[in-house]
Amino acid sequence: MRVEILGIKEIPLIGKEDDLGEIIFMAAEKQGIKIKNGDILVVTQKIVSKAEGKLIALDLVNPTEEANQIADITGKDPRIIQIVLNETKNVIRLNERAIISETHHGFICANAGVDYSNIEDGYVAVLPENPDRSASMIRSRIRGIAGIDIAVIITDTWGRPWRLGQVDFAIGISGISPFKDYRGEQDLMGHTLSVTNIAIVDEIAAAAELVKGKELGIPAVIIRGYEYEKTESSAITLLRSIDQDLFR
Amino acid sequence: MRVEILGIKEIPLIGKEDDLGEIIFMAAEKQGIKIKNGDILVVTQKIVSKAEGKLIALDLVNPTEEANQIADITGKDPRIIQIVLNETKNVIRLNERAIISETHHGFICANAGVDYSNIEDGYVAVLPENPDRSASMIRSRIRGIAGIDIAVIITDTWGRPWRLGQVDFAIGISGISPFKDYRGEQDLMGHTLSVTNIAIVDEIAAAAELVKGKELGIPAVIIRGYEYEKTESSAITLLRSIDQDLFR
Repeated sequence: MRVEILGIKEIPLIGKEDDLGEIIFMAAEKQGIKIKNGDILVVTQKIVSKAEGKLIALDLVNPTEEANQIADITGKDPRIIQIVLNETKNVIRLNERAIISETHHGFICANAGVDYSNIEDGYVAVLPENPDRSASMIRSRIRGIAGIDIAVIITDTWGRPWRLGQVDFAIGISGISPFKDYRGEQDLMGHTLSVTNIAIVDEIAAAAELVKGKELGIPAVIIRGYEYEKTESSAITLLRSIDQDLFR
Repeated sequence: MRVEILGIKEIPLIGKEDDLGEIIFMAAEKQGIKIKNGDILVVTQKIVSKAEGKLIALDLVNPTEEANQIADITGKDPRIIQIVLNETKNVIRLNERAIISETHHGFICANAGVDYSNIEDGYVAVLPENPDRSASMIRSRIRGIAGIDIAVIITDTWGRPWRLGQVDFAIGISGISPFKDYRGEQDLMGHTLSVTNIAIVDEIAAAAELVKGKELGIPAVIIRGYEYEKTESSAITLLRSIDQDLFR
């Protein structure tokens, strides 16, 4: 049982309307990685947002009174707060250090995923509008170029309750089941497993982050050798409904 | 940039006082995996608990009134509830479906990590008393056998707030820094990163789970090719203090 995590280097800085599928495929080829049927391509949200024009110029933002008030609490730029609020369906927690938002997609994360690392001055990036669709488009494009079927996972880097540090999570998927479900199967002792349902796309997101490295500029990674269930699904199926959630 | 995830097969069922370091090392050798300097060995908590005799016979447990009351709410065996309570420092949430506990170590997870998969009937397994020490012992043993320095991570499988499904987390570490800290470094645009501090041992735990597979009986995994900071640390440093935590 052997899985490889391969970072795709020398992907150029991405701009609006760039053809991500082609750019990633060509960068991999150039590096000697021939993307194959059954590979999983993991792509960082940031380059997807850039390609989809999801950068917002701070100069064009007029903060509301609410944004100004939160800016006073958090000590942040009220224009950035305004963008966070625009991306937020519900504020889950708010204090002087953080805004934990539920995004319009339903993801719960700090600042609704708005961030300004690896972005030119005066702009912030927001999450793709429909990360599943973003994943699907990259997958289709690579199918078009190379005639192969892969899975694509779009990821973002978030903190967690209770534990320090961040890990990568899946926010958009195409061609892969988000879960490996052991419920109903038998363990080594012959007992039926009643709980275990592994969120494998989050594990794959986390695994891919290991070779990314912010300073290395590796926004795309191939996971090879992992046998996954090929199906059409959505990263939204990873979200707990509020009645299944003890922490909202 | 290439990292490999190698599952170690044919590890026999583990019993009390088994020499885990030697058993894992020999199983890897037999399979043609020569564990090397700089490898990361990821070991599932369950076999550590078994080797350390952390199985508890349900017949020997007398549930208290509190355990009986919670058993009424949750519909679970009051003896198992009693064991969960014994392993719990604070109950974080309790309803008919789950007890979310803070363990004596400080980990927050369902049922204080008590579980009965892959355990013989009539017993449950509790977490190792000191998983860092468990990791350190396996590491020392392999250093003793082969004269090499590796990192060891003990993992468990937990659910998360807001997201369905479980992923593996690091509960004990030896010879590796839990974090890769980018704070103070510069991004591709020359901005100083102020937030990013990746919980790499949790990412490694998640990556390793991909090749484990409950039904495959692969409780130990080698991560090869990942360059980590070699240092003495503790999985306890991953825990947020209560004043840094918005979800307790």
